[in-house]
Amino acid sequence: MNLIRRIETGHGEFLLFALTPPRLATEPGQVREIADVTTARLRPLGLDGLILYDIADEAERNPAERPFPFMPTLDPADYLADHLDAWPTPVIVYRAVGKYAPEELRGWLTAQDPARVMTVLVGAASSAAATRMSLADAQALRREANAALTLGGVAIPERHSRREDEHLRLLAKQESGCRFFVTQVVYDLNAAKSFVSDYHYECRSRGVPRVPLVFTFSVCGSMKTLAFLRWLGVDVPRWIENDLRHAADPLEASYQQALATATELIAFCRALDVPFGINVESVSIRRVEIEASVRLAEALRAQLRS
Amino acid sequence: MNLIRRIETGHGEFLLFALTPPRLATEPGQVREIADVTTARLRPLGLDGLILYDIADEAERNPAERPFPFMPTLDPADYLADHLDAWPTPVIVYRAVGKYAPEELRGWLTAQDPARVMTVLVGAASSAAATRMSLADAQALRREANAALTLGGVAIPERHSRREDEHLRLLAKQESGCRFFVTQVVYDLNAAKSFVSDYHYECRSRGVPRVPLVFTFSVCGSMKTLAFLRWLGVDVPRWIENDLRHAADPLEASYQQALATATELIAFCRALDVPFGINVESVSIRRVEIEASVRLAEALRAQLRS
Repeated sequence: MNLIRRIETGHGEFLLFALTPPRLATEPGQVREIADVTTARLRPLGLDGLILYDIADEAERNPAERPFPFMPTLDPADYLADHLDAWPTPVIVYRAVGKYAPEELRGWLTAQDPARVMTVLVGAASSAAATRMSLADAQALRREANAALTLGGVAIPERHSRREDEHLRLLAKQESGCRFFVTQVVYDLNAAKSFVSDYHYECRSRGVPRVPLVFTFSVCGSMKTLAFLRWLGVDVPRWIENDLRHAADPLEASYQQALATATELIAFCRALDVPFGINVESVSIRRVEIEASVRLAEALRAQLRS
Repeated sequence: MNLIRRIETGHGEFLLFALTPPRLATEPGQVREIADVTTARLRPLGLDGLILYDIADEAERNPAERPFPFMPTLDPADYLADHLDAWPTPVIVYRAVGKYAPEELRGWLTAQDPARVMTVLVGAASSAAATRMSLADAQALRREANAALTLGGVAIPERHSRREDEHLRLLAKQESGCRFFVTQVVYDLNAAKSFVSDYHYECRSRGVPRVPLVFTFSVCGSMKTLAFLRWLGVDVPRWIENDLRHAADPLEASYQQALATATELIAFCRALDVPFGINVESVSIRRVEIEASVRLAEALRAQLRS
C-alpha cells in the first residue's frame, strides 16, 4: 500500500528516512551530485517515504551556545523539485512556518501534488521567537489552499515527561487536520512509552481514531553531537550518555542503543495496537555516520511487517 | 558463599526477600503462626537472606493523605529474636533511626551477632521530621558499638533523576561504613540504569570498589497500592500505571512488568560488571499478592548466577 493511502487509513508499519537538504553555500553542480549519491544509497532500502527537514536557526530555543554553528540549507521544497524528481516514493516536506510569509506558503501548498507530497508544519521552537506566521494560521492555510494535501505534525515525548499533556496537544492537532505525527529523535524510551500509552487511552476514551505515530531514531558518533541533541531539547538519559562516552566505538554503541530502543518501542506499539512508523534520521555529513544510519534503516526494515 | 561474606567481599548475584513484621495489635499466638507460615513459604526459595523492614509513620513525608492508614508493626528486631530464630540465612534488620534514643539503638547494635545479622540504617523521610537521632550519629554509633556488624544503606534512584547526585550520596555512605545498598521498589528502569551507570563510573574514576547494589521489586495488585507507592516517593511511569489500570488481571500484569524490569536491569549490571542483588518485597497481607511475590522470587532466582 502506498504511504499516503496507508497514513490516510491509519495503518502502520512503514519506514521513512529523513534528510536535511545540502547547505545553501553548496555549488549547484555539487548539489546534483549529493542528490544522486543520496538516492543511490537509499534506493535499496525499500523505504515507504522520504522526509526533508526545513532547518531553522532556532537560536531563540536555548540561551546556551549552539554546539554547531547554524548553516542555512537549501529550501527542502526546492531541493525536492529540482533534484529529487526521480525519487520513487511519496516525500514529506517539513515547513518551519515561522520562516514564511503567508502568501509564500500558500503558493507552495497550492502547487503540491497530494499524490506525491505530504507536509509537516512546524511551529516556532520558542514562543519568544519572532515569527511571520503561527502554526494555527498555517494549518488553516493548508485547508484553504490544498485540503487534499496530507498534513502531519511534530510530537515531542520529552514534553510529555514534563507536562503530561503531549497526547492532548496531538488530539488538538488532529482536529486541525493532522493525519500523522513525527517525533524528535527518541532516546528516552520511558517518555516515549508513556506518551504512546496516554495517546492510546485518550483516543479510546474519546472514540477518536489513532493516527500513525512515527518514531525517529538516529546514530550519534560523538559527544559533540550528543550535546547538540540536548541543545535541541532531546532528553538523553545519563546511562546512554555514559555508555557513549566510555565506549571504544561510540558510533557502534549508539547504533546498538538505537536498535534496542526501536525494537522495544515497536513491541510496545504492537501490544497496544497503535499504528506506527519508523523514521531514521541522518543529519550528519560524516560518511561513517551516514553509513551507520543506512545500516540502522536496514535492520529496522527487517523488523517491520508491511 | 554466605551472604555476609559475599557482601563484605563485594560479590553479587544474590536473592533477598523483604517482609514487614506483623501488626503490633496481632495476638501473640497469631504472630507465631504468621512466622511459621511465612518461613514455610519462603524456605523452598533458596534465599540468600531475609530483610525485615522497620515501618515508620512517615506522615511528614508527604502532605497528601496516606492512601493506607499507618498501622504500627512489631519491632523487626523483636520479631527476629522471638519468632525467626530457626530461619537458616543471615537477616538484614532495618532501623528507622529517628525512632530510637541513642542508648536504645546502642543496646541493640551491641547485642547483634555479626555472623547472622546485618543492619540497614535509614534516616528520616523528611528533614522536617522530629527525630531522636540523625543518620550520621547512628552510623557512628554502629562503629563504636559493633564495628563487625555489616552495614547497609538505602539508595533512591528516583532522587537521582531529580538531582543527579545519588551516586555521590552512596559514596559518602560508603565512607561511613556502608557495604551494600538497597533501593526502593524499582518501577523506573531509566532512573535505575542512570543511577547504576553514574555510580559505576564515579567509583572507577575515584579508584573506589563498587559494593553490591540490591534492587527491590514487588507486585502491585491494585491502583490503591500504586497510589501508596507514589505516596512513598516511588516514580511509577505513566505507561506502567496505564497498563495496570486497563489490565484484565492487574496483579499478573504487574508480575510480568516487574520480571521484565528486573531482567533488563540484571543484564545492564552484568554488562558493567557491577555487583548486584535482587530483593523481592512483599508488604501486602493479601494472599494472592504474597503468592505472586513468591512466584516472582522463584522466577528471578532462576536468572541469578550464584
